[in-house]
Amino acid sequence: MENKKSVSKPEGKLAVLVPGLGAVSTTLMAGVELARQGKGAPIGSLTQMGTARLGKRTEGRTVKLGELVPLANLTDVVFGAWDIISEDAYQVAVRSGVLHDKHLEAVKPFLQGIKPKPGVHDAEFVRRIEANHTKATKTHRESIEALRQDIRDFKKELNAKRAVMVVCSSVETFRPLPEAFKTLAAFEKALDENSTDINPTALYTYAALKEGVPFANATPNASVDTPALQELAKLEGVPVAGRDLKSGQTMMKTVIAPALKARMLGLDGWFSTNILGNRDGEVLDDPAAFKAKEVTKSSVLDTILQPDVYPELYSKYSHKVSIHYYPPRGDAKEGWDNIDITGWLGYPMQIKVNFLCRDSILAAPLVLDIALFLDLAKRLEWRGIQEWMSFYFKSPMAMPGLPVEHDLFIQLTKLKNTLRVVAGEEPITHLGLDYYGDDLPLAR
Amino acid sequence: MENKKSVSKPEGKLAVLVPGLGAVSTTLMAGVELARQGKGAPIGSLTQMGTARLGKRTEGRTVKLGELVPLANLTDVVFGAWDIISEDAYQVAVRSGVLHDKHLEAVKPFLQGIKPKPGVHDAEFVRRIEANHTKATKTHRESIEALRQDIRDFKKELNAKRAVMVVCSSVETFRPLPEAFKTLAAFEKALDENSTDINPTALYTYAALKEGVPFANATPNASVDTPALQELAKLEGVPVAGRDLKSGQTMMKTVIAPALKARMLGLDGWFSTNILGNRDGEVLDDPAAFKAKEVTKSSVLDTILQPDVYPELYSKYSHKVSIHYYPPRGDAKEGWDNIDITGWLGYPMQIKVNFLCRDSILAAPLVLDIALFLDLAKRLEWRGIQEWMSFYFKSPMAMPGLPVEHDLFIQLTKLKNTLRVVAGEEPITHLGLDYYGDDLPLAR
Amino acid sequence: MENKKSVSKPEGKLAVLVPGLGAVSTTLMAGVELARQGKGAPIGSLTQMGTARLGKRTEGRTVKLGELVPLANLTDVVFGAWDIISEDAYQVAVRSGVLHDKHLEAVKPFLQGIKPKPGVHDAEFVRRIEANHTKATKTHRESIEALRQDIRDFKKELNAKRAVMVVCSSVETFRPLPEAFKTLAAFEKALDENSTDINPTALYTYAALKEGVPFANATPNASVDTPALQELAKLEGVPVAGRDLKSGQTMMKTVIAPALKARMLGLDGWFSTNILGNRDGEVLDDPAAFKAKEVTKSSVLDTILQPDVYPELYSKYSHKVSIHYYPPRGDAKEGWDNIDITGWLGYPMQIKVNFLCRDSILAAPLVLDIALFLDLAKRLEWRGIQEWMSFYFKSPMAMPGLPVEHDLFIQLTKLKNTLRVVAGEEPITHLGLDYYGDDLPLAR
Amino acid sequence: MENKKSVSKPEGKLAVLVPGLGAVSTTLMAGVELARQGKGAPIGSLTQMGTARLGKRTEGRTVKLGELVPLANLTDVVFGAWDIISEDAYQVAVRSGVLHDKHLEAVKPFLQGIKPKPGVHDAEFVRRIEANHTKATKTHRESIEALRQDIRDFKKELNAKRAVMVVCSSVETFRPLPEAFKTLAAFEKALDENSTDINPTALYTYAALKEGVPFANATPNASVDTPALQELAKLEGVPVAGRDLKSGQTMMKTVIAPALKARMLGLDGWFSTNILGNRDGEVLDDPAAFKAKEVTKSSVLDTILQPDVYPELYSKYSHKVSIHYYPPRGDAKEGWDNIDITGWLGYPMQIKVNFLCRDSILAAPLVLDIALFLDLAKRLEWRGIQEWMSFYFKSPMAMPGLPVEHDLFIQLTKLKNTLRVVAGEEPITHLGLDYYGDDLPLAR
Ligand SMILES: NC(=O)c1ccc[n+]([C@@H]2O[C@H](COP(=O)([O-])OP(=O)(O)OC[C@H]3O[C@@H](n4cnc5c(N)ncnc54)[C@H](O)[C@@H]3O)[C@@H](O)[C@H]2O)c1
Ligand SMILES: NC(=O)c1ccc[n+]([C@@H]2O[C@H](COP(=O)([O-])OP(=O)(O)OC[C@H]3O[C@@H](n4cnc5c(N)ncnc54)[C@H](O)[C@@H]3O)[C@@H](O)[C@H]2O)c1
Ligand SMILES: NC(=O)c1ccc[n+]([C@@H]2O[C@H](COP(=O)([O-])OP(=O)(O)OC[C@H]3O[C@@H](n4cnc5c(N)ncnc54)[C@H](O)[C@@H]3O)[C@@H](O)[C@H]2O)c1
Ligand SMILES: NC(=O)c1ccc[n+]([C@@H]2O[C@H](COP(=O)([O-])OP(=O)(O)OC[C@H]3O[C@@H](n4cnc5c(N)ncnc54)[C@H](O)[C@@H]3O)[C@@H](O)[C@H]2O)c1
Ligand code: NA
Ligand code: NA
Repeated sequence: MENKKSVSKPEGKLAVLVPGLGAVSTTLMAGVELARQGKGAPIGSLTQMGTARLGKRTEGRTVKLGELVPLANLTDVVFGAWDIISEDAYQVAVRSGVLHDKHLEAVKPFLQGIKPKPGVHDAEFVRRIEANHTKATKTHRESIEALRQDIRDFKKELNAKRAVMVVCSSVETFRPLPEAFKTLAAFEKALDENSTDINPTALYTYAALKEGVPFANATPNASVDTPALQELAKLEGVPVAGRDLKSGQTMMKTVIAPALKARMLGLDGWFSTNILGNRDGEVLDDPAAFKAKEVTKSSVLDTILQPDVYPELYSKYSHKVSIHYYPPRGDAKEGWDNIDITGWLGYPMQIKVNFLCRDSILAAPLVLDIALFLDLAKRLEWRGIQEWMSFYFKSPMAMPGLPVEHDLFIQLTKLKNTLRVVAGEEPITHLGLDYYGDDLPLAR
Repeated sequence: MENKKSVSKPEGKLAVLVPGLGAVSTTLMAGVELARQGKGAPIGSLTQMGTARLGKRTEGRTVKLGELVPLANLTDVVFGAWDIISEDAYQVAVRSGVLHDKHLEAVKPFLQGIKPKPGVHDAEFVRRIEANHTKATKTHRESIEALRQDIRDFKKELNAKRAVMVVCSSVETFRPLPEAFKTLAAFEKALDENSTDINPTALYTYAALKEGVPFANATPNASVDTPALQELAKLEGVPVAGRDLKSGQTMMKTVIAPALKARMLGLDGWFSTNILGNRDGEVLDDPAAFKAKEVTKSSVLDTILQPDVYPELYSKYSHKVSIHYYPPRGDAKEGWDNIDITGWLGYPMQIKVNFLCRDSILAAPLVLDIALFLDLAKRLEWRGIQEWMSFYFKSPMAMPGLPVEHDLFIQLTKLKNTLRVVAGEEPITHLGLDYYGDDLPLAR
Repeated sequence: MENKKSVSKPEGKLAVLVPGLGAVSTTLMAGVELARQGKGAPIGSLTQMGTARLGKRTEGRTVKLGELVPLANLTDVVFGAWDIISEDAYQVAVRSGVLHDKHLEAVKPFLQGIKPKPGVHDAEFVRRIEANHTKATKTHRESIEALRQDIRDFKKELNAKRAVMVVCSSVETFRPLPEAFKTLAAFEKALDENSTDINPTALYTYAALKEGVPFANATPNASVDTPALQELAKLEGVPVAGRDLKSGQTMMKTVIAPALKARMLGLDGWFSTNILGNRDGEVLDDPAAFKAKEVTKSSVLDTILQPDVYPELYSKYSHKVSIHYYPPRGDAKEGWDNIDITGWLGYPMQIKVNFLCRDSILAAPLVLDIALFLDLAKRLEWRGIQEWMSFYFKSPMAMPGLPVEHDLFIQLTKLKNTLRVVAGEEPITHLGLDYYGDDLPLAR
Repeated sequence: MENKKSVSKPEGKLAVLVPGLGAVSTTLMAGVELARQGKGAPIGSLTQMGTARLGKRTEGRTVKLGELVPLANLTDVVFGAWDIISEDAYQVAVRSGVLHDKHLEAVKPFLQGIKPKPGVHDAEFVRRIEANHTKATKTHRESIEALRQDIRDFKKELNAKRAVMVVCSSVETFRPLPEAFKTLAAFEKALDENSTDINPTALYTYAALKEGVPFANATPNASVDTPALQELAKLEGVPVAGRDLKSGQTMMKTVIAPALKARMLGLDGWFSTNILGNRDGEVLDDPAAFKAKEVTKSSVLDTILQPDVYPELYSKYSHKVSIHYYPPRGDAKEGWDNIDITGWLGYPMQIKVNFLCRDSILAAPLVLDIALFLDLAKRLEWRGIQEWMSFYFKSPMAMPGLPVEHDLFIQLTKLKNTLRVVAGEEPITHLGLDYYGDDLPLAR
């Protein structure tokens, strides 16, 4: 393809700034450092392990994604964090119980060096955590100023040329989209009035956008996908993505639902239950926090299955999602899904999926990819919604008017084809007629 | 797209000829008739229920596949069958226990009207069935002649303009590719010599190709994907597809394996076990027959996971497949899969899938689609391997030199994009940058 | 054993009277009639299928329970019912979707003949049902009188010598034991005052006891196991049992928990989730009704595992039970349990149980047994709590001061040994030393 | 009970001698030492954690089993082993991957001190292991003499007053009971003739019995339950038990089958599959070795379900057991069971059990109990078959003419009631009528 996109090289350090120094973010940090030490492979990360086939199948051209487009190198990644608890990254990692002792020991000094800056906290939004490390600011405007100063300080302290922010803090209690989030003007006014509708995550978002820092939201909290903050993102020319990482059960849902649709099998019901015992689970034990998660978890089926296009198959299924805080499970979240499907002439069948996963192990590489791809987008001078990054989110964003894409395989095709065309390569259509010459002629 | 392919209309009746009047084929026949009577929906069939989105997402153009390309109408489909047991389709359907009484009763006269012609049998290849309805032919050449005559007779009796053959007979005992199948010349010689290497399925195949009848193999038996019979298919200009329908557990495998690869999660092992209690299961209880099935079931992982491209992730997994004849299950085959995966830094996780399926309910719509698409291919004057139909098979075919595609989603993309270009539409790449105008400019 | 208990013969008809003509009770009625017609076996019923071994193992004496003690014969069982909906038993059975058409058709006239008398209803206790068939009574006292009259009428209409009542009505909303239930005096006063604390089930109970009719409670509703109504039962000399049938998931729990304890394996957690889609599930969708069920479902573990006796093993496990109304499941309730156990040196293991059951199919034979055993107890002149019937209940009764027994196997031993001694046979201890003569001498 | 059995005190050391220093036996040894150090609890062991209730429930008398009968104290247990590989217990434990590093380190010197004496090997019976540490003996008689000398040496070296032997070696290839095992005379002759029918395990057994050492067989190998060796056991007055530990899937089977029978639910089929990746699994990958295991695993259902007593329920079920060597699983054996049951009127239901267990963690405490109970039996001067120890075995022994007991709960009752009567206490019958005074009078 002639129209290869020119993109600046990723020079110098890239600061990955995370509100929320918890299980996910410390697993990310430990893993990046272990990978740098050659003591652990960054499995699960497309930017580190992924490849793309280029050209025709017979050319045998397959390259690493990092060779296709210029991504920041792991050796250039540095970390900064905020938290409302004062523990350093090592203390958090030990308490979270995600990593084995031998992994923790290998990166102990590195993690101990990562100390959070005080967080912006609101006990109405996060009710199950005893905060001990919060900013003394009195107003939303003061909090934003403090966060913006933190960002500038982080860049200096970490000697970073560029920064991205990925919110990894606790799930906040849900409320239906407040007026304050409907336009940027309303939002600014609500800031001025210290409205209690404004959640801490929104303040981090606002600060990042104002600093021109690419931003993603790994949580189900209200943030950059609200109209107000989308407006700001466009205005400031910042690339953004979110909301809520698609890691375990929901990821599998966006795999199996497309399979059912591929095979034109009907759906009578999908029941999903989850047990988890980490701090995220403890926070989700608050019904108002669970509500936020339930919302992002529930939306995926309809957009994949297209009940409007396939009313006979998908117009009346039951969909239930439940999450239970169950301490024996620790970070080893477990999902059980029962899927009631129908086939030929309406005969019922069942698929049951039991996923014994590890929450933070699945999430960490996604955060890494998001950070590196956002940085790429910034260097491409792309701004606003990065639809091609839908792959990473339970509730991804698309332009108003476009359907949101939840199908994991379409998301991956979208992502890889985007990278291909950025690199001046042909997108792949999986059409293969031409290999067969006269046998399968397209036109005659 | 300018180069729309001109394709002749499907005029008159289409005879679907099936060696093997068993659970799958009678479920197909009953279902087609029930659908025609408006008493059952052809769920699971892409040709009947599927759609394709055309053009840009904002155009809102979504059409039924049958509107995109000219497919034979269900009302024009007629059936002929061979079997080595003399039961008519109704008797078989009742014995097979797939359909409810009310469905069976609604199509009783229709099914009773479908009486098999005597089959070509070899007790060395199918050892668990007491044949009572076989041809009296003495030599392979005689058998072929009888089958060719049957085909011509079927067309007359059924008043059909066109025919396709889909083999749905029992699994034959496995043997590594005999010399006789390596070239057409060797095959012809083996026919002349009445070689015991030639299995009945191969004789049906040969007869169909010689009659210019599009051919597919829904079983794991040696057939049109052997070099000898591929040669014949090209020579005779007949479109062909196979082998072994991808219906239940293997279908799910080609869904979940791509998901693991999409997410760059490693694989330590995949254990699949199956219990089924229908006649197919009884035949598979013969270890030599099971071997044939094991071969088609085992190949899928490697080609999807590409151990050569991803050695860190996929070069040393265990893959075990077992099938057990277990009468309580009847046609309601059940699969249990345990999948041992690894994530970030090598931490292990597990996915377990329990699929309570119905064998023939899953298979019947696939046979319908295969028949209708082969008929389309014939009218397109396409010949030889129909790679775009890989979607339907456990062990699909591709040109020598091209990797076989097992990923269900790539297969579907390939199939639909093929139909799109046949219809003169753009193939879909899921690239979406252009919707975003200046926000995500490709080139500047 | 010399002290064989003399017990009167079960002469004449036995009327089984059920408040609640729903899925469970109509499945019972249909099944009893089908068994009488020789068209279905009363599987799941100890009174119909069970046996007891008598004497020493070498004697080879094994008899049917009905030969050991005199039980009413199925041919003598007749049914009466109350409901707040006017449908007859056939209409209910068809709507409930438990039985196949051929079973329903075979007993259609029989079921149509069973028409409920109007029920005593309180919309505060059963909120999800539109009642259309309720008594016009104004006060609790009037309702009781009407019910007592109904009982007398039923006996006449059904030409029955004896009657038993088994409550099979909907789950009522939960409230912690009200004062009114703490003594019989308080209860009488509450009746006089038409207290809103008195639930309909309690009124049925009161009426039965006053009529001297043996009574059992198959639901989780407050009834004969409250102190007030126990007092009445003793006073009236009526044998009673309850509460809440132990049919599916909880039954399995009382099987597996004893196994863990037998093997001295520790317990970290037990997570149970349920999906069901019948009317009972619809009623349980009301959180206040679910609460009643949750209470009876949750109590079983502690009494089996004895945390006080085994603090190292069972003093700190998590136990979660959830129920979800999920229509695709219909009456085919499904349970999924995850059990986190620990072994030698504390190493963790997991057991997962997926029970695809049928609610009413499991419950019906239990109701039959309860009715027949209560009738036996009455003829034995036994009164008050029938601890030996604990086998049938989620929340069984025992004398104040005695631990309630939940272990299914101890319950069965208790039941069968009770029948043995009633028949003048030795209870079984499974001690077998004496068979071994001098090899394993007990005393020397 | 007046006839309390007098039993000698367990004075001095007890040597537990194990042919087979593998995963099970080293997990036992490590665990006993960790328990002595207070660093691990002997969970899963009845002798260490179990209790018995004595007298009436109202007495509140519950005692530890070790207080009820005199058992050897853990501090007095010492270990000796034979193996055909020269590794010491520490090396074996590390390789087996059962225990965490911190557990292994705590007992490293202790385990290093346990070095096996050379084993008696026959490569025809154990085909998948490269032996490097075998006796140089030429004849069976020489091997026996060497083993008897070893036993005497062990007692001296370990300064032990008493010894017991528990065979924990690899599964040997199966052969139907050879003539040589049918009488002691035939066995002696076969020994003289160095018959190839005599397996190594039989030689260990013979040696132990001749030395008067109580003996148990934790493996499926032919041993003391053959007529020949039973004869010898009686002759020598030695208590014996076996065969094959009942630890995971089979243990659960003997829990769930009794539950089905308790509830009179029918059985259509039981399918059990297992995946395991330890050395035992590697050995079982040899079909002739698997056969031995299959035999002990398959027998349990019939004796529990009594098809002769309950022909309607249990006379025609399918029972399949399969084991697969699957390396990713290591010692963490996993079982999946599908159980097809029937209820009221024959309606089908399903129970699926997925047991993620740890083979050696489950087995180790059983071996400990067996050793301590055999030692008790010896001090009771009991000899021959110890039916009361059936609790521990997949294929337990009973006197000819008595049915073998597989039901875990009956086995436990048998075991505990035996201990009760040994201690002069009443056996428990779970009869509870007398608590109820006049309410439930037995005789009047
Ligand atoms: N792990 C996954 O698979 C996964 C998937 C999707 C989304 N997520 C989301 O990622 C987020 C992090 O998950 P986790 O498991 O690391 O949780 P965690 O509880 O371990 O960490 C969250 C951290 O955020 C901190 N925090 C809370 N409010 C804050 C504030 N206002 N400012 C700064 N810090 C704040 C908490 O103190 C805590 O340390 C959660 O929102 C979770 O729902 C995780
Ligand atoms: N149902 C599925 O999901 C599925 C999936 C993949 C493949 N298949 C394959 O489809 C085939 C049919 O399956 P089914 O369940 O209908 O089996 P079936 O046993 O019910 O039917 C097979 C029929 O083939 C007949 N037959 C055997 N040899 C013959 C011969 N030489 N000529 C003519 N007839 C012959 C048998 O008599 C029988 O009636 C099998 O090979 C099976 O492996 C089925
Ligand atoms: N099926 C099981 O396995 C099982 C197990 C344990 C307990 N139970 C209990 O058995 C009961 C019956 O279950 P079901 O599945 O038959 O439910 P169902 O909803 O089918 O039937 C209950 C019937 O009770 C009627 N009813 C409600 N209030 C009444 C009143 N005051 N007087 C008379 N009738 C009244 C309803 O109209 C309905 O017809 C429920 O309480 C359920 O929780 C069932
Ligand atoms: N772990 C369980 O849950 C369980 C349950 C039932 C039975 N078993 C049985 O226990 C036995 C031991 O299991 P494991 O997991 O420890 O196996 P393992 O393979 O770890 O150990 C067996 C040991 O026996 C040794 N051996 C083989 N032949 C020998 C001989 N003739 N003399 C002396 N040593 C010999 C081997 O070298 C090996 O070290 C097996 O027979 C197994 O089937 C185990
Ligand atoms: Na739940
Ligand atoms: Na298997």
